[in-house]
Amino acid sequence: MALRVTVRLGMPEASADIVPQELAALIESGDRESAVAFLRVLDSSDELLAVSRLSDETRAKLLAMLEAEEAASLLQVLPEPQVIDAVERLDPQVAAEIVSELPSAEQADVLGELDETGAHAIIELLDQEDAADVRRLVEYEDDVAGGLMVTEFLAYDQHASVAHVITDLGENAEKYSDYDIQYTYVTDRLGALVGVLRLRDLLLSPRSRELRAIMIREPISVPDAMHLEDLARFFDDNRFFGAPVVDEQARLVGVVQRTAVEEALAEGSDDTFRRSQGIVGGEELRTMPLLLRSRRRLSWLSVNILLNIIAASVIALHQDTLEAVIALAVFLPIISDMSGCSGNQAVAVSMRELTLGVIKPTELLRTLYKEVTLGFINGAVLGGLIGLVALVWQGNAYLGLVVGGALMLNTIVAVCIGGSVPLLLKRLKVDPALAAGPILTTITDMCGFFIVLTFASMMLERLV
Amino acid sequence: MALRVTVRLGMPEASADIVPQELAALIESGDRESAVAFLRVLDSSDELLAVSRLSDETRAKLLAMLEAEEAASLLQVLPEPQVIDAVERLDPQVAAEIVSELPSAEQADVLGELDETGAHAIIELLDQEDAADVRRLVEYEDDVAGGLMVTEFLAYDQHASVAHVITDLGENAEKYSDYDIQYTYVTDRLGALVGVLRLRDLLLSPRSRELRAIMIREPISVPDAMHLEDLARFFDDNRFFGAPVVDEQARLVGVVQRTAVEEALAEGSDDTFRRSQGIVGGEELRTMPLLLRSRRRLSWLSVNILLNIIAASVIALHQDTLEAVIALAVFLPIISDMSGCSGNQAVAVSMRELTLGVIKPTELLRTLYKEVTLGFINGAVLGGLIGLVALVWQGNAYLGLVVGGALMLNTIVAVCIGGSVPLLLKRLKVDPALAAGPILTTITDMCGFFIVLTFASMMLERLV
Repeated sequence: MALRVTVRLGMPEASADIVPQELAALIESGDRESAVAFLRVLDSSDELLAVSRLSDETRAKLLAMLEAEEAASLLQVLPEPQVIDAVERLDPQVAAEIVSELPSAEQADVLGELDETGAHAIIELLDQEDAADVRRLVEYEDDVAGGLMVTEFLAYDQHASVAHVITDLGENAEKYSDYDIQYTYVTDRLGALVGVLRLRDLLLSPRSRELRAIMIREPISVPDAMHLEDLARFFDDNRFFGAPVVDEQARLVGVVQRTAVEEALAEGSDDTFRRSQGIVGGEELRTMPLLLRSRRRLSWLSVNILLNIIAASVIALHQDTLEAVIALAVFLPIISDMSGCSGNQAVAVSMRELTLGVIKPTELLRTLYKEVTLGFINGAVLGGLIGLVALVWQGNAYLGLVVGGALMLNTIVAVCIGGSVPLLLKRLKVDPALAAGPILTTITDMCGFFIVLTFASMMLERLV
Repeated sequence: MALRVTVRLGMPEASADIVPQELAALIESGDRESAVAFLRVLDSSDELLAVSRLSDETRAKLLAMLEAEEAASLLQVLPEPQVIDAVERLDPQVAAEIVSELPSAEQADVLGELDETGAHAIIELLDQEDAADVRRLVEYEDDVAGGLMVTEFLAYDQHASVAHVITDLGENAEKYSDYDIQYTYVTDRLGALVGVLRLRDLLLSPRSRELRAIMIREPISVPDAMHLEDLARFFDDNRFFGAPVVDEQARLVGVVQRTAVEEALAEGSDDTFRRSQGIVGGEELRTMPLLLRSRRRLSWLSVNILLNIIAASVIALHQDTLEAVIALAVFLPIISDMSGCSGNQAVAVSMRELTLGVIKPTELLRTLYKEVTLGFINGAVLGGLIGLVALVWQGNAYLGLVVGGALMLNTIVAVCIGGSVPLLLKRLKVDPALAAGPILTTITDMCGFFIVLTFASMMLERLV
């Protein structure tokens, strides 16, 4: 069977859907053994491709057929909307078995996205320890230490002996092997974090010694409310793989891994890009229902078309000028598009500088100064070029002056707005990626149309 | 002094540059003690802000003043262009001392960016082991396992005893504490990787036993040529913190950390966003010289303006139609912008699906089918809206039909092109982020202008 599948995957595009179709047929026929066997011959990327293409219903059936552990590892690679949907469709008992195989942070992520009744039904069926962890974790926002941390960590009392810890490690080796253990933590009687213990130090200490004697004291920890951006800076400053998370009472409640922070940041960057393109309200997959996809894209497009109409109304107001110098109509879309591009470049630079931490959101004057000077040069180059095109095409130097001058002036406007809008939005705690683009293009379009048509009406007798 | 600094940082924006200015004055006066003391009272984000604002020359002087270890940790947070510049300016002896405090992967990153003579001078001054590592590492591309790996790892011969390893760990505890050690590796006489040893297993084994008896056999490793994308998938499939890297002769040459892979991916996403906005040829910081910043942005803008002129020439060819129905000029920028937006949404979805691995670059037909249906719906909605606006404004139903029909048709064109261009570019191994936008907008503009003006000339007598 391996050969058959491989050959088919090597065939041209039209047949790539045959694998999910065959898999779907096996699942729908209820032939558990064959379906699982079929899945096992696929390599991990073909497996993901095939499972992601199944209908939501069939995908849920497949997950119910698999061992809980296999189902859980599938959930960890599937796109989030498919994960949520599948868990919602599963029988709570089956869902609970699968969810209990996920790391605690991901348990909370999944359950936090379900509706309350669904989440509650599953949590009830988890074992006590998992359930308590999840209940606490879902309370946290996704982008704070508490929402990113795992609750699988090792902590011992400060008065425990080295021998006790080594014995415990040995007895529970199987259980702990699923944990990503970098350090062992040491707590006092009230559960407050008092030290960190390296396995290395444990190894090299007399067995009768108390942990408090060999632990690293005053360990660095992060509060559970620490925000993703601050965590990113924290892990930049400290080369730790993970950091203990403490609540308001200084009690150790979890461990936030560097990897969790970096995954969240990478996810954020992808989001930024998608949202700047108007893919909002959750990510779109082409396997989703057509009307849902359409509605999500339209939610942004419909705002955008209104802004466009507002901007274009500036042209409508100067229709007489345009009628007199019809050649201007050719330059209007160019001025609109070029100003948008220049402005977006400034947006990208501001957002990068904010991320790197080399600019403060309050430094508006500095940004404007840096952008005005650059806008002057780039505006002169671009305006000169377009002015030349106008001159050559229509043989009228004044048309060149009007069009070129307008593009130059509007380039300066665009880079100033583009450079400063992300800083302002950041101060207002609005996501710059989402709002900067539409605001920018509407304003620069309006300004651009206004400038070029006003210049033109001022010089009308020289242009006709 | 701490108080003074804090108060100033709390002041409004204009004075934020006072801190770097004071720091610069101290550095330039050669007052090493005061400069270092000044830096130490700043918290890490203010330190980064201040140092990033220094002139390139002053920044290099500061690095030379600091202890090599402090200078190295500064290098790890500064933006890359500033790091490269500073290292280039430093005396090779000083640079070598600082570089030797960096982890090996970052040593190679920095030295790989220097010109050959500069890099050679520094490598010569590193200690033998570091120099050999760096020479090997700089040979690798940045986006393969060899270029991402660190060479600080622990490996022991398979015949070594547990006691030997424990003794070695104890004796070299200081040195090894700088390593990010998750596992200890076991090699044969030729340096080939034969096993992995967990500290936990070491801890729990009789001291006289040979490593080969307690190691995990047939360890999973990755080839040094494995590409970033495959590494990302590898770490998705395996919950390891790091993986041993082997060369073509199966020799253990380094360890690639999950964090290194994730950092590289996050960097890639940021790059994608910036490059999609035309910030190419390296990242821009506003501290860079004005002309450099201007040139970099212009390199993309000048291509874009040419594409814009080509697209707008379609309007010029239909000038007579436009002259007859001047109201069309108002709708041209709207059609251009809206089609661009719809197309960019499709670009974003395709890029996301490629990243998630739920689509293959060869699946063009599937993508087109999914986009045509969606384009039809969204086109109808947007076209209907704009047609209504035209009808109400000019009281001419035919104008509404022309404008609305054109936007609808062009929306379908735009989403089809937007959805498929990333797949095609991926197959051609061109970065979709860089090329998709300009290609898309030029084609959709040309089509849009052509469609609306052709429709209009066909119905000219009903429009005037």
